[in-house]
Amino acid sequence: MGETDVLGSHTVTEPEIVAFATKYDPQPFHTDPEAARGTIFGGLIASGWHTCAIMMRLSVESARRKQAVLTGSPGVASCRWLKPVRPGDTLTVRAEVLETWASRSKPIGFVRSRVEAFNQRGEIVLSLVGLSMYGRRQEGSA
Amino acid sequence: MGETDVLGSHTVTEPEIVAFATKYDPQPFHTDPEAARGTIFGGLIASGWHTCAIMMRLSVESARRKQAVLTGSPGVASCRWLKPVRPGDTLTVRAEVLETWASRSKPIGFVRSRVEAFNQRGEIVLSLVGLSMYGRRQEGSA
Repeated sequence: MGETDVLGSHTVTEPEIVAFATKYDPQPFHTDPEAARGTIFGGLIASGWHTCAIMMRLSVESARRKQAVLTGSPGVASCRWLKPVRPGDTLTVRAEVLETWASRSKPIGFVRSRVEAFNQRGEIVLSLVGLSMYGRRQEGSA
Repeated sequence: MGETDVLGSHTVTEPEIVAFATKYDPQPFHTDPEAARGTIFGGLIASGWHTCAIMMRLSVESARRKQAVLTGSPGVASCRWLKPVRPGDTLTVRAEVLETWASRSKPIGFVRSRVEAFNQRGEIVLSLVGLSMYGRRQEGSA
């Protein structure tokens, strides 16, 4: 427990922010750099769901490198968008294992983690507690 | 309080599930219909983040119809993916207002809502409690 792991980094671009938001979160401060200047954010910011999606991508890539078999998630708790994410920001995602347990009936394990994304200034922009399921290697299997 | 509102519906397609997941959640049960058949889900399912993104799209469109001015969100609590979302599922999103309050210092209001997406069989597939900020019309303004 308490083990913290850096999952990876991603630099967010303006076209990427606009593309995601145009499809899934079409609010002016996510889709229109010009209109965004007149909002409380003072410029274009990424949809919070986009930040979550970037975090997920980095998590999946990290699991793949470790040959861990993710098998879904029942959900997340307390997902907080703490700072705006702006074009050019480089996000780094780290995860801390809070708790693990094995299913009694299925060959899966549960891992509860605190996942945080921080920007190039070290500011945490996203913080969530997620629950992931992993496939377990059965004893005696290849 | 306790007011429940249907925000809209969306039918999820296989290409849409694969496109989202290829970019943001590249796990076989989200990206590869063939490989998905061999997983515990027995077929392709949407990324939970994709379901959230669809929910957000319907929320933004609903707010626009009501001429409500969304101004961002500090986060969500207890986001649960309760049932798999499969190609062809029609999701309907409803929201129940749990709590509202006004900022003391800024012309914004806060609304805490329980948001649920259910499928064409009436099964809840996504349930979350979100906090949204809305612009308030100032007294005396146009």
